[in-house]
Amino acid sequence: MSLTVIGLGPGSPDQVTPEARHAVAAAEEFFGYAPYLDRLELRPGQKRIASDNREELSRAKAALARAAQGVAVAVVSGGDPGVFAMAAAVCEAIEAGPVEWRTIEVCVVPGVTAMLAVAAKAGAPLGHDFCAISLSDNLKPWPLIEKRLDAAAQAGFVIALYNPISKARPWQLGSAFERLRKTLPAATPVIFGRAAGRPDERIEIFPLGEADAGRADMATCVIVGSAETRVIERPGSGPLVYSPRFARESA
Amino acid sequence: MSLTVIGLGPGSPDQVTPEARHAVAAAEEFFGYAPYLDRLELRPGQKRIASDNREELSRAKAALARAAQGVAVAVVSGGDPGVFAMAAAVCEAIEAGPVEWRTIEVCVVPGVTAMLAVAAKAGAPLGHDFCAISLSDNLKPWPLIEKRLDAAAQAGFVIALYNPISKARPWQLGSAFERLRKTLPAATPVIFGRAAGRPDERIEIFPLGEADAGRADMATCVIVGSAETRVIERPGSGPLVYSPRFARESA
Repeated sequence: MSLTVIGLGPGSPDQVTPEARHAVAAAEEFFGYAPYLDRLELRPGQKRIASDNREELSRAKAALARAAQGVAVAVVSGGDPGVFAMAAAVCEAIEAGPVEWRTIEVCVVPGVTAMLAVAAKAGAPLGHDFCAISLSDNLKPWPLIEKRLDAAAQAGFVIALYNPISKARPWQLGSAFERLRKTLPAATPVIFGRAAGRPDERIEIFPLGEADAGRADMATCVIVGSAETRVIERPGSGPLVYSPRFARESA
Repeated sequence: MSLTVIGLGPGSPDQVTPEARHAVAAAEEFFGYAPYLDRLELRPGQKRIASDNREELSRAKAALARAAQGVAVAVVSGGDPGVFAMAAAVCEAIEAGPVEWRTIEVCVVPGVTAMLAVAAKAGAPLGHDFCAISLSDNLKPWPLIEKRLDAAAQAGFVIALYNPISKARPWQLGSAFERLRKTLPAATPVIFGRAAGRPDERIEIFPLGEADAGRADMATCVIVGSAETRVIERPGSGPLVYSPRFARESA
């Protein structure tokens, strides 16, 4: 009995690892959010079971139930499956599920997660200590997110924001920017990285003081610099944004 | 004029993206730390220029100087080049260097960074908000690292520790564990992930109360859970470690 959780990377086929490609070839049934399943080139006989993007736990349970029946199951995520994605949901389902599920061989195939793809397009904004925070308050209370934003900004972490905005969560990113403006200088660079590596890619850089949450959508990963993050203007091409490797005591 | 900063992933050829492979094929000269250059399969005529792992800035300058001469230059990093690796050093060198260097086309090719590969082997320890901290105090003062460890642990971030230990920095990881024990429960899972995805891989899990810095070496990425991180024991295979996607107000 086996279940593989596969990271498909940020979206470009060129950023899918050979390991992920082999794992796709070896599986019989694929569980995932439809846009991720759409990226797969499946053979006749390989089967896709699509579900909505807020049904992670029921999707994980359905996949484990099929794996327990002896089917070679794959659960697919965009980016890396361990970062705000399906690997944790599968673990949650195993812990809460029948003891038999603990004997299913679980393999997680890592991938390039969104913040790395966005950072690469901008320069090296994650070049110093950084954190990743999901702005979704579906599964955690908003005050806890605010506490983490404060802690991260005050301690000098660069901050990558996942799940910044959606139709059901329209105000959270704007509220996060407001919160961060209390601690960080208005000139702090903010990167809006949409669909990095895909044909519809859009990378935009604004100072925190002018960052407008309306620039983000569900396919965007937002990176907020620390007070040390720098912008290098270049003639004829976009600026480079980077966080120096060194830091002063006061940082 | 072009310079490409290439992420070679954690070490397995199976985890090198096609994009990275194509970037290697397109370059003429390769600058990097020798063990990373050793991973490349170069053609006759492709040239390697190895330097020590504490010479990032001079390596970046040498690479930029060659790119400015019209050579197709690649700078290689293990993992992802934007995470405690060469992309930031290249940006630093560009900012401090001759204005001409700002006209060099810089491309960063992302990769699977160590913490993602280690997390995949353990389950989903990075499944909730997390941070990445370099424990090297070569370029930043130790009290700043302690401040960040405190802030991250108190705010409930899972913590990935890069550069945990070396011959020149023997005490930092042990000191970090001591520091974290003041905030986190003794049962908090700590993952020592050595050479994930390579033949000499070793993944070990200990409670924070018993975590011994001597288990780590230069090839290790250490992940310290939050107070919410859980361990699922399994018959016949290693435990799964994961951080649930949900969190309570008090977390």
